[in-house]
Amino acid sequence: MIIDKLYESVNNKGPVCVGLDTAIEYIPKDFLDKYNYTEDAIFRFNQKIIDSTFDVSACYKVQIAYYEALGIKGLIAYKNTLKYIKEIGGIAIADIKRGDISKTAEMYAKAHFEGDFESDFITVNPYMGLDSIEPYEDYVKNNEKGLFILVRTSNKGAKDIQYIDSKSDERIYNIVGEKVQKIGEKYIGNCGYSSIGGVVGCTHLEEGIEIRNNLDKTFFLIPGYGAQGGKADDVAVYFKNGNGGVVNSSRGILLAYKKHENHEKFDLCAREEAISMRDNILKSIK
Amino acid sequence: MIIDKLYESVNNKGPVCVGLDTAIEYIPKDFLDKYNYTEDAIFRFNQKIIDSTFDVSACYKVQIAYYEALGIKGLIAYKNTLKYIKEIGGIAIADIKRGDISKTAEMYAKAHFEGDFESDFITVNPYMGLDSIEPYEDYVKNNEKGLFILVRTSNKGAKDIQYIDSKSDERIYNIVGEKVQKIGEKYIGNCGYSSIGGVVGCTHLEEGIEIRNNLDKTFFLIPGYGAQGGKADDVAVYFKNGNGGVVNSSRGILLAYKKHENHEKFDLCAREEAISMRDNILKSIK
Repeated sequence: MIIDKLYESVNNKGPVCVGLDTAIEYIPKDFLDKYNYTEDAIFRFNQKIIDSTFDVSACYKVQIAYYEALGIKGLIAYKNTLKYIKEIGGIAIADIKRGDISKTAEMYAKAHFEGDFESDFITVNPYMGLDSIEPYEDYVKNNEKGLFILVRTSNKGAKDIQYIDSKSDERIYNIVGEKVQKIGEKYIGNCGYSSIGGVVGCTHLEEGIEIRNNLDKTFFLIPGYGAQGGKADDVAVYFKNGNGGVVNSSRGILLAYKKHENHEKFDLCAREEAISMRDNILKSIK
Repeated sequence: MIIDKLYESVNNKGPVCVGLDTAIEYIPKDFLDKYNYTEDAIFRFNQKIIDSTFDVSACYKVQIAYYEALGIKGLIAYKNTLKYIKEIGGIAIADIKRGDISKTAEMYAKAHFEGDFESDFITVNPYMGLDSIEPYEDYVKNNEKGLFILVRTSNKGAKDIQYIDSKSDERIYNIVGEKVQKIGEKYIGNCGYSSIGGVVGCTHLEEGIEIRNNLDKTFFLIPGYGAQGGKADDVAVYFKNGNGGVVNSSRGILLAYKKHENHEKFDLCAREEAISMRDNILKSIK
């Protein structure tokens, strides 16, 4: 089970997930100018970030939207980034938030668990229902792949659907969370968590505690740290014995060089930021 | 407003949307063998389908999952297909069902309303909330672009979230539908419909009538016809005076040649199928 590899990685290197949401404008100009092709510059930038954070972060989350925005070139950089993470034995979460059914979902599974865009985990959107999840399960069962299903996000608009109270007095995100844990039960690793996990935002403390209690076997992908406002105490509630989740920061890490006004050593600044984030979270967990 | 162009197209050519969900195995072998590169074969197949159905269908829906599944090559075929539809003055709906927030949603908007993958409409998933829709609105307002937001799908799993009854006694899909119409109010064209429309499945007659009554200014993208079980009478309820929606069929049209055992003239078989579908729907509407 892929979840055991991720769990182990959190134990060894801490719970930081480095988000490679690499927009061209995030790349220092001197570095960018060294490359004739955009796709090379993006990939080489990512590679330096990956190398500098590899021993202090659990995994990488690659946000495909940033690459799609650059068309074919961007997707070549995306492909090369995933390939590199695989080559060095890292763990890649493809943040694609796909959601579709039957044959179309099978195609998305093929797209992101095989071939050019192969990753270890993908994020998926549950709005169409559980039959939009089933087509991925073969890969979870047989190919060491995993899912993170959107449960409760931390943006303002989350209230529009996720926070609606049902007639049976449960919030939609709770209903979704329970369904996620239920599907995940078939794919629990030695670590006690399932290879089908959930995406939960890191903003509301009490809700966080409730979610962790309800979903005791669900591993969490927790975005929203740093640039999006999340703090170490907010995410600590999702952890049990220092594990059970990874916390993503993208801009906070990629753009750490701006804070230090050290454009040349952007990779070392990213490393320092990842270490500081890791230590803050570990302190809050204890 | 792009919706006026689509409305006009439905008036002139009928409500059929041809779904280009082109898997390699859908392409007749003799045709496939003519090309050295997969991406060429897929694009040329699509081109022949487009040419043969152009005067009898309102628009084309390109399901990106089928192209993503083939990696970079597939996305080159996807890009060329959208480019060709644009060149000949057709209308392309990119069925991408993306759903994300803030900067990431901006990236998706850039990805699918500009550059390599430019299309006229995209489908989006509302689970994260209305702030996941806002980043697209600039394009709707200023760049002749449109959206179809998932409201109620026709798959079995739709019951898992979309059919949950809220405490205020409204189903989730109704709440979402009302929100879609509300956002859409700012972008209503001369035709009386908004450039922000909804995706609604074509299976439940009574619910269809209710949805059409509630959402009187919402143009619908209606998938699920043919291969997925939808019939002309099921979709007719969504139309007012012969307009207000487009009905998608993918495999039914692409694979019509198998029914006629005429692999050589797959394009003419597709045309016949589109005409027959159009006439059936128009008959049911009247």
